Amino acid sequence: MDYPSKVLAKAVDEISGLPGIGKKSALRLALHLLKQPESQAIALGDSLKKLVTDIKYCKNCHNFSDAEICEICDNPKRTEELLCVVEDVRDVMAIENTGKFRGKYLVLGGKISPMEGIGPNKLNISSIEKKLENGIVKELIFALSATMEGDTTAYYIYKKFKSSPVRFSTIARGISVGDELEYADEISLGRSIQNRLPYNEKD
Amino acid sequence: MDYPSKVLAKAVDEISGLPGIGKKSALRLALHLLKQPESQAIALGDSLKKLVTDIKYCKNCHNFSDAEICEICDNPKRTEELLCVVEDVRDVMAIENTGKFRGKYLVLGGKISPMEGIGPNKLNISSIEKKLENGIVKELIFALSATMEGDTTAYYIYKKFKSSPVRFSTIARGISVGDELEYADEISLGRSIQNRLPYNEKD
Repeated sequence: MDYPSKVLAKAVDEISGLPGIGKKSALRLALHLLKQPESQAIALGDSLKKLVTDIKYCKNCHNFSDAEICEICDNPKRTEELLCVVEDVRDVMAIENTGKFRGKYLVLGGKISPMEGIGPNKLNISSIEKKLENGIVKELIFALSATMEGDTTAYYIYKKFKSSPVRFSTIARGISVGDELEYADEISLGRSIQNRLPYNEKD
Repeated sequence: MDYPSKVLAKAVDEISGLPGIGKKSALRLALHLLKQPESQAIALGDSLKKLVTDIKYCKNCHNFSDAEICEICDNPKRTEELLCVVEDVRDVMAIENTGKFRGKYLVLGGKISPMEGIGPNKLNISSIEKKLENGIVKELIFALSATMEGDTTAYYIYKKFKSSPVRFSTIARGISVGDELEYADEISLGRSIQNRLPYNEKD
């Protein structure tokens, strides 16, 4: 495709470097921006640059943060006794969105995946060690994907720290709220039966 | 959704202002950029800003351009006798891509659409007048969408300039190359029969 202008060609090229956006969509987005007031593209451009230059990672939990320590780690109302281990910042957001967790997090930054060449040394596992050292953490909760890689990662961390005086738990797996049994996959349904809970009329 | 960082929230907000990109995709794109080298987001941000600040519109044909006059208008090898009227810069690119047109263009910047409040005065129709004044243009080719709005726009321009000594034509409509007759829609097929061409073994 020939572009009538080099600035346009460059913009299309940069936009199509994003995942899931091809040359055609990139051109559509560029032409959209050109139809809007200039300020929109300038604000977008600035906030993308600021995103990578100004964002910080919390020293404690590796969550994104605007300061050295993130708001969650810095919140004295949240207990230090519960430590929830997640793969990704998105998982922190998803759990925070439920409003059901009042502990702290640790963002691993991925999961062990030999296929993608990600070994334990690429994850923030040493930060778990630091967190467990002072003995404040009572329970370490795995909130990892229900996949082979997620299970491997949980097992690796469990093996490494099983001698520490901490309880290990993992988020419940079973059928989703709203699911009909007939359509649930057998593994989830099997886990649901195995891990059945005392009936509670308030749930 | 609560974001752990204000720079992230701002970036997600700006990205999701683009058409077809919701908050979830915007977050995915922002997190992708954060995983790449900083330079990628900076280059993207810069080229988006440059796009709107540096791009020019050709004074002659309203195509995008890096200079006052675009490369197509400035090319002496292209004939001034053929003027192809298109809605959009994308259409210029599409026709240029075929390599089958050696004339000049005029980009209307849209089509007449009362539904969207676009009247003839919002289009670059006065530039057609200027082009026709000196009598060099021999044929005005409508390359507009095969929609009600496209047809209305062509008819409006035809009515306005039909007294000028210029031939009007429109791009051929019919079944696409590769189409099977049985699946072609009846209107396209009908036009194909009406506008049948002398058989040419070289086509």
